[in-house]
Amino acid sequence: MSGSVDPPSFRIRVIFGPGSRMGPGKADLLEGIGETGSIAAAGRRMGMSYKRAWQLAETMNSMFRSPLIESSRGGPGGGGARLTDVGRRVLDEYRALERAAGAAGGAHAEALRGLLRTSGD
Amino acid sequence: MSGSVDPPSFRIRVIFGPGSRMGPGKADLLEGIGETGSIAAAGRRMGMSYKRAWQLAETMNSMFRSPLIESSRGGPGGGGARLTDVGRRVLDEYRALERAAGAAGGAHAEALRGLLRTSGD
Repeated sequence: MSGSVDPPSFRIRVIFGPGSRMGPGKADLLEGIGETGSIAAAGRRMGMSYKRAWQLAETMNSMFRSPLIESSRGGPGGGGARLTDVGRRVLDEYRALERAAGAAGGAHAEALRGLLRTSGD
Repeated sequence: MSGSVDPPSFRIRVIFGPGSRMGPGKADLLEGIGETGSIAAAGRRMGMSYKRAWQLAETMNSMFRSPLIESSRGGPGGGGARLTDVGRRVLDEYRALERAAGAAGGAHAEALRGLLRTSGD
């Protein structure tokens, strides 16, 4: 009886090669760093440990041709972090990929949803 | 110096709601069942345990409005399994979604690859 149903959403991982991939976790961490100015705070709002957030940031920094994230560990207020120009390009490109892929796959996702047991009939 | 580089590939998971999702693991298992006629054999070629393959098959069977997989556990030769018409529709729709989303996201994935450290320059 609930007439409102969210459209299906997509989680898209791009595999460049062994151990080289970009997906929603990395994108959300980049976005969070851009918004909070802190790797720890960005990780925290994703439910990610401090250590895991730093590891993911370091993975991204070494994966691309120049760092995506600039950070200072210490300093007043515990240090901060910001996205570099390349970091912002990577995030923007990934979000554009998600939008394009989601738009192109939307009709198929709706067709799949129509076959679900819980589709409302 | 290796001029040949595979294009980036995609792993796409569709989220219908909490606990209701369809991704490459389920699709590959369906495809394997269609090709091998056996849930165990399909799981084995994915490196999946017998138990995990059966669990995934049961999850899919209860998730959609009618079963995707028909199976007999016993019988001569240890039983067999096949896709139902709905199972084949779900697999075909998911593969079509992958193709459409991959085509639409391809240029963005290439742009991301151009920013990788290992992109060849």
